[in-house]
Amino acid sequence: MTVRSAPDRLLAVLAAFDHDHPALSLTDISRRAGLSLTTAHRLVGALSEWGALERDASGTYHVGLRLWEVAALAPRGLALRQIALPYLEDLYEATHQNVQMAVRDGDEVVYIEWISGHSAVGVHIRVGARWPLHATGVGLALLAYSDAASQEAYCARPLVAFTPHTITDPAILRRVLAEVRRSGVAVSSRQVTEDALSVAAPVRNADGSVVAAASVVVPERDAQVPALIPAVRLAALGISRALGWQPRASGG
Amino acid sequence: MTVRSAPDRLLAVLAAFDHDHPALSLTDISRRAGLSLTTAHRLVGALSEWGALERDASGTYHVGLRLWEVAALAPRGLALRQIALPYLEDLYEATHQNVQMAVRDGDEVVYIEWISGHSAVGVHIRVGARWPLHATGVGLALLAYSDAASQEAYCARPLVAFTPHTITDPAILRRVLAEVRRSGVAVSSRQVTEDALSVAAPVRNADGSVVAAASVVVPERDAQVPALIPAVRLAALGISRALGWQPRASGG
Repeated sequence: MTVRSAPDRLLAVLAAFDHDHPALSLTDISRRAGLSLTTAHRLVGALSEWGALERDASGTYHVGLRLWEVAALAPRGLALRQIALPYLEDLYEATHQNVQMAVRDGDEVVYIEWISGHSAVGVHIRVGARWPLHATGVGLALLAYSDAASQEAYCARPLVAFTPHTITDPAILRRVLAEVRRSGVAVSSRQVTEDALSVAAPVRNADGSVVAAASVVVPERDAQVPALIPAVRLAALGISRALGWQPRASGG
Repeated sequence: MTVRSAPDRLLAVLAAFDHDHPALSLTDISRRAGLSLTTAHRLVGALSEWGALERDASGTYHVGLRLWEVAALAPRGLALRQIALPYLEDLYEATHQNVQMAVRDGDEVVYIEWISGHSAVGVHIRVGARWPLHATGVGLALLAYSDAASQEAYCARPLVAFTPHTITDPAILRRVLAEVRRSGVAVSSRQVTEDALSVAAPVRNADGSVVAAASVVVPERDAQVPALIPAVRLAALGISRALGWQPRASGG
């Protein structure tokens, strides 16, 4: 066990919780955070008193409502989602397909909203899920509008394949990104699972930076891509306007 | 400045952020958390490195995406909201009114979902907002199904009035709570603002405990309460079933 600062130890307790471990005993927390049981007990006590953790009747700890309230202030999390939700609902109304929004964090997308449509595809995304940029529609849209150095760095790293259709050739990825910038829309077909296709468009903020992407995911087999493109673009433009973006004379 | 433990100081930095203060400079954080600038600088550094805070180009700090990801695991926050969202969307579809879901935290409700309807009322709720139990429909629904001791304690405390219609008489509140238990639905008319009425119903989990309430808020002037009641009850029952609740032969 390495020597760690007090903040690091407290944050290690929070980091012990993840999607596969949403409920932990004190012993679990101690083991996963790499802390002695005594230290874990003290830190869990402080976090519980504050409301960052909640203890249920069986003595198991969960993430608490107070932490959720603070986290709701994250501009790239719930705050962005709250502005976007009416437009995502309209997109769902118009398509009745799976609708989602994601932001970039490093080399991954993080889904901050997911509305389940009536058509089932093999992609099971949840809010908070992460996925590499090159496989998903939202990821391609976010990567295409990041700066050239960041794109080149991403193309230079190993590109993991999830299906035989996942782009793994950097030269092809560069061409796809150029096409996304030209058309303003990203289409990812069977790159995540064999049965799914996604259409994504960039969301801009007041200064024109691409801060998120909105998309629909549909079964690839009967995907009506030409009909989905304007719907996704309109939703993304609506969210962008709500964030203060204004199209320039050149078209933004 | 009192002597505080290391966890308390770190949590004070997080608590410096609230709805009225979602973006803070290092000086703001130091002042609001009651910490020296040196200590605030060190703690903000640790929180930023971990991703709990994010620093924008102007040097201002916001709540970060990483904290939001951990908080998304809160069973009473995003996790519950994720299960409930399809039913809340259906309720919105059926009514086109403001739809919300809330949980109880102490003597208050905390809104964990809010879908804005087409009709404007003077109530401006946001996700994460808090409101006293006795004024709101969701609060009355949550209070009515809490244990007798907790209800009596609440009735014994001062009941703040927000309009001339807010219940402030404990005897009336007790009668209203009994009526909520009898009918399975709570109606709050002009108790929060002069123009709004809400209809709320309890949401139960697998063991039958009431863990949340769903509601619609409509303009009081032309509220069709008899038509709203079955819609809200059905949505709340749907969420309850999705949480594993099963009606007993007696009717649950």
